[in-house]
Amino acid sequence: MNAEVITVGTELLLGHVVDTNSAYIGKRLAEVGINLFFKSAVGDNLDRIVQQLRLSMSRASIVIVTGGLGPTGDDITKEALAIATGREMVLVPRLAVEIEKRFASMGRQMTPNNLRQAEIPKGAEPLPNPAGTAPGVMLEHGGVTVFLLPGVPREMRTMFEDSVMPYLKQRLAGEGGGAVIKSRTLKVAGLGESACEAEIADILREQTNPTIAPLAYPGEVLLRITARALDERAALDLIAPVEEKIRERLGPAVFGVDDETLESACARLAIKNRVRIAVAESCTGGLISHRLTNVPGVSETYVLGVVSYSNDAKERVLGVPGAVLSRYGAVSRECAIAMARGVMALGPADIGIATTGIAGPSGATPTKPVGLVYIALASGSSVVSSRFNFPGNREEIKLRAANAALNMLRLWLLRIAFGREGTGQEIKGRQAGDREAV
Amino acid sequence: MNAEVITVGTELLLGHVVDTNSAYIGKRLAEVGINLFFKSAVGDNLDRIVQQLRLSMSRASIVIVTGGLGPTGDDITKEALAIATGREMVLVPRLAVEIEKRFASMGRQMTPNNLRQAEIPKGAEPLPNPAGTAPGVMLEHGGVTVFLLPGVPREMRTMFEDSVMPYLKQRLAGEGGGAVIKSRTLKVAGLGESACEAEIADILREQTNPTIAPLAYPGEVLLRITARALDERAALDLIAPVEEKIRERLGPAVFGVDDETLESACARLAIKNRVRIAVAESCTGGLISHRLTNVPGVSETYVLGVVSYSNDAKERVLGVPGAVLSRYGAVSRECAIAMARGVMALGPADIGIATTGIAGPSGATPTKPVGLVYIALASGSSVVSSRFNFPGNREEIKLRAANAALNMLRLWLLRIAFGREGTGQEIKGRQAGDREAV
Repeated sequence: MNAEVITVGTELLLGHVVDTNSAYIGKRLAEVGINLFFKSAVGDNLDRIVQQLRLSMSRASIVIVTGGLGPTGDDITKEALAIATGREMVLVPRLAVEIEKRFASMGRQMTPNNLRQAEIPKGAEPLPNPAGTAPGVMLEHGGVTVFLLPGVPREMRTMFEDSVMPYLKQRLAGEGGGAVIKSRTLKVAGLGESACEAEIADILREQTNPTIAPLAYPGEVLLRITARALDERAALDLIAPVEEKIRERLGPAVFGVDDETLESACARLAIKNRVRIAVAESCTGGLISHRLTNVPGVSETYVLGVVSYSNDAKERVLGVPGAVLSRYGAVSRECAIAMARGVMALGPADIGIATTGIAGPSGATPTKPVGLVYIALASGSSVVSSRFNFPGNREEIKLRAANAALNMLRLWLLRIAFGREGTGQEIKGRQAGDREAV
Repeated sequence: MNAEVITVGTELLLGHVVDTNSAYIGKRLAEVGINLFFKSAVGDNLDRIVQQLRLSMSRASIVIVTGGLGPTGDDITKEALAIATGREMVLVPRLAVEIEKRFASMGRQMTPNNLRQAEIPKGAEPLPNPAGTAPGVMLEHGGVTVFLLPGVPREMRTMFEDSVMPYLKQRLAGEGGGAVIKSRTLKVAGLGESACEAEIADILREQTNPTIAPLAYPGEVLLRITARALDERAALDLIAPVEEKIRERLGPAVFGVDDETLESACARLAIKNRVRIAVAESCTGGLISHRLTNVPGVSETYVLGVVSYSNDAKERVLGVPGAVLSRYGAVSRECAIAMARGVMALGPADIGIATTGIAGPSGATPTKPVGLVYIALASGSSVVSSRFNFPGNREEIKLRAANAALNMLRLWLLRIAFGREGTGQEIKGRQAGDREAV
């Protein structure tokens, strides 16, 4: 069973609104194993909506349209469907009454244009819209089922789950069930996209089901494993051995799956091992603290963050020696280490982590370019540090530096965890060295 | 001149990625008056990409394709274009050398699959990609110009501005220009969407060209004024009087236009008035500092941030009296005021701003619900404070609280600015009072 999605609205073409509806629908269709081969967006223009409906109805057995169901003059999706299928529009009296009631219950007067919402193509079925006033439409025509849903995401989702999904599941059951598509995303830090792909090139090449799709973000690579099978259990069984092979190859560079983030991985490990964390930031400007505090329950481990943006603050608040600042400068390995030790003592915490660097666009010197960042981690009397040259603009450099710092923290916490469990196994971790930017 | 956009990538159909590229392109095309009638998304499937290319090339004179230019096996957009136009693929030696150099400069080894990025359809022109390794492609074929751009948004945008836009403008100039659509977005803080719309209801009703579209975000309302005219100057002339009317009505609630953010507005005002800022955060967890430090040049005004997540840190680092914590608790007006005064002294800064509250999901008590946030601003011996009850989840409460704090800071800075300029005009500002959440 193939489906197509059509999103209607000039605002989508003008770029005033980013379309999230079609991504939602695509995800839900994949979950029940329905192929989506094309998505199209078209403006509030009758001819072109008709043209797109005819094309999609010629290629797919399910066509889901969002947008253009409202009361205003540019809401013409139902008319377009009537024309595309050679039907006339008819008023559904029951819908007219419902719409009137809804307005009355909100204490508002129904304007005549609202009555247009009670008209649908002849032979179609109205779909209830519990979250809004514009009803949806379902029409079976020449072996194709067309759904018209509102464009407001909240209304669209409610109606999709209440009306479209049950219909699709019933049809799938009648056809002996479709294949189910299930995805699981492994998240990788500390390795660039090419390096990551090189490590698993043979696995990537061999795979057809499940497939593996790498996606690169600044300082993070996602490996999405997607399996197709008769049911969810079978799909997960296809994914599991491939996931294991990748994990063996990449080791602790894999920091989590699906919704896990670097910060949630850090928080989880730190809470489990009862480690208190303090953060001192210069170039990342509070981003590391912000991300850690997005994790619910992080107050069990995160105690203090200091954004020491001036030299003065580095010296007075964190106790960075004036000699370090005057001799090596604020952007130096020595300063990063002093900041990490300083914030650990101030917390007081078991681990202090610190960043200092040049996020740009200004502030560079001949020996210290934009993107140069030092990161240090202090724990008890130990300290580790790294130097990076990150590409990108100011916000991207902040993001990459925060990712590198969180990854350093995560690898350190893994070592502690393994040490405590006494396995003796060493976490090699991929500590990014000098000049490597990932 | 009509254009079409095709986005390529199975991840777009599976809903794993929300497409922002086509919105960006749509906006830019509208700005120069090029019609975009259809946008289509297609998976990493050769036949279907070819099919979509042929369809779009039959309807439009400009076709812009994003995605599928990378080095991996499922990057097949260039091959599809070669097939759709009956051309063969050829290696561009100069591109091969460039790609090799790029890898060398990053200290990384080029893998053989990266060489595929140096192949393009015969007769096409490679487009430089300053932000990545995958070059783009421009091909003129049968009166249609096709652009292939990468799917990574940052690379796509750079290449669109560097290569596509200059081409389009030249062609438009040759054709005597089209109708231009121009938008200007007024940004409003401290007023909810309904309140904002109520204040300008008559203006909203009257307008046809320009149109005004309100868009609500947590703690922020955008009013997008869009005019259509023969050229940019005429479009801007239509927008100006409407903007003035709205500004008169909303006063200082309008904090900027277009790319201005609350944080950039604060930084601009603070730098201009030579005011040093320090920030103490509890529930916002570093978000205010992160946002302020996203503004280039902010180190001229922003000196210190403290994320005092534990009571201990509030007491020892910020000097919040133990009696305040034991008597009123950490989530109290008294604590917010002590934090603001504490961080101002520690900076040292001219203004200290502080947040404390319950971001949830845990931590609520019968008298202190999730979403309760106190914000205080200290300046010299003055202090102002507000209490809020914000709706939403943890991240949304952090966002709303940060917006409220930045808006409080902005209104305070406006008062200073006016005071210094000696106009005597009072900035009324919409200081959100008790229990008001916007």
